[in-house]
Amino acid sequence: MMLTAHEIQNIIRTGVPMAESIDFRVDEVSGKNAIARIPFSETFVRPGGTLSGPIIMSLADASMYAIILATLGRVEMAVTSNLNINFLQRPKPEDLLAEATLLKLGSRIAFCEVNLYSPNSDGLVAHATGSYALPR
Amino acid sequence: MMLTAHEIQNIIRTGVPMAESIDFRVDEVSGKNAIARIPFSETFVRPGGTLSGPIIMSLADASMYAIILATLGRVEMAVTSNLNINFLQRPKPEDLLAEATLLKLGSRIAFCEVNLYSPNSDGLVAHATGSYALPR
Amino acid sequence: MMLTAHEIQNIIRTGVPMAESIDFRVDEVSGKNAIARIPFSETFVRPGGTLSGPIIMSLADASMYAIILATLGRVEMAVTSNLNINFLQRPKPEDLLAEATLLKLGSRIAFCEVNLYSPNSDGLVAHATGSYALPR
Amino acid sequence: MMLTAHEIQNIIRTGVPMAESIDFRVDEVSGKNAIARIPFSETFVRPGGTLSGPIIMSLADASMYAIILATLGRVEMAVTSNLNINFLQRPKPEDLLAEATLLKLGSRIAFCEVNLYSPNSDGLVAHATGSYALPR
Repeated sequence: MMLTAHEIQNIIRTGVPMAESIDFRVDEVSGKNAIARIPFSETFVRPGGTLSGPIIMSLADASMYAIILATLGRVEMAVTSNLNINFLQRPKPEDLLAEATLLKLGSRIAFCEVNLYSPNSDGLVAHATGSYALPR
Repeated sequence: MMLTAHEIQNIIRTGVPMAESIDFRVDEVSGKNAIARIPFSETFVRPGGTLSGPIIMSLADASMYAIILATLGRVEMAVTSNLNINFLQRPKPEDLLAEATLLKLGSRIAFCEVNLYSPNSDGLVAHATGSYALPR
Repeated sequence: MMLTAHEIQNIIRTGVPMAESIDFRVDEVSGKNAIARIPFSETFVRPGGTLSGPIIMSLADASMYAIILATLGRVEMAVTSNLNINFLQRPKPEDLLAEATLLKLGSRIAFCEVNLYSPNSDGLVAHATGSYALPR
Repeated sequence: MMLTAHEIQNIIRTGVPMAESIDFRVDEVSGKNAIARIPFSETFVRPGGTLSGPIIMSLADASMYAIILATLGRVEMAVTSNLNINFLQRPKPEDLLAEATLLKLGSRIAFCEVNLYSPNSDGLVAHATGSYALPR
């Protein structure tokens, strides 16, 4: 049976203390998509008053992990092998959302795409793709 | 006059609270290279007892920022436009080091390469490239 | 007035002899999408009887160029600054199609995504993202 | 026994007719490096009188294939799984060279870096990284 968004959030926050410390949340999983979020915190900013790159990359990576767990179950040992991210627009100082989509599930590799956006702004904040190596 | 490693570390940790919270350090800057470090902490792990991807990406990104500040001075408004990272080997639970090299400095864009490694292991933990958009 | 698919095809094939030699075609442009194609040729294969990587990359790159010309008009001097491609499935020996989407149009940079697929197979052959530097 | 540069060139040009048609050459292989070349041809240009992106990407990809064959022998069924390229400087209308380095050889994946340059100019034309999936 498919893990729920809440179960996936708990698995990730338990296994990755960093995800707990930035309050990583999984809002929704359905089919090949997961929607995840990092609530805004003043500790996430960088010069310019915008969210720092590492926070955006952390959400991109964790949202891919979420859709992989949603699809395959408890494969916590899946690990990122490649991540490519383009930063398109400085995010406002507000929550950051990510919609991760599983584009290809092979026997060795899962390939995902992530759209990152601010809830109250048009246009993407960033776009990422990534490959996860799956445990045998 | 070129900023010292210590000055760059202070600029980054003051501007980016996240860098302060993970104890980001700049060990050395010279010519086109910067060597940066994140000391090991139990809070950085992920399943498998290894460092999580976001910690490795944070160090990759911050080490590129360091070599750009070393080269151009206080251009804190430089922002990452693209980052590509390949994870090559699970890091041991120890400090993680990064050697960032500036490969191209244009008027709009700085392009860097980063080798990430564990001090006591052979082979790379990860390899990253990235572009920073420079303020005008 | 927006260039037609046929006009864009002619501009690209005239300016880039390589595109002419591989019979690059623009099937359709509309809004933020372009659909482009390379008809199958025995000269495009590699060991395994599948299309070679460079052919797939050439179509990815040219389809992004097509959607940029469709959006901005005759900006032939736009040049690729970054391209990232993931190969997901060996294409059959048949035509290769690409659907390129413009995800962000800035003043300096256009950012695109491309889905590459075989007309008679399920699943993606490859997925690419790319940035083009725009002429001033 | 390690394949020679000339043997690798022949294997690639025989298996990939496209490499033959652009006169792809392997100048040298030694240890973890291969130096490859595409001689200049008027048919490789794009608007601006410079080499087109697909030619540069073709050389990047083929030079990685060359160093993998040099290292592992006749693994022609190795296939590119990811390629990331940054274009740093418009090449002059002259030969294009590539120095490919094998950075990691795993059981499933070989990871390479490529510096692309013009023989008579300073600075890189492009920088690429790529992963090849190895046959079992």
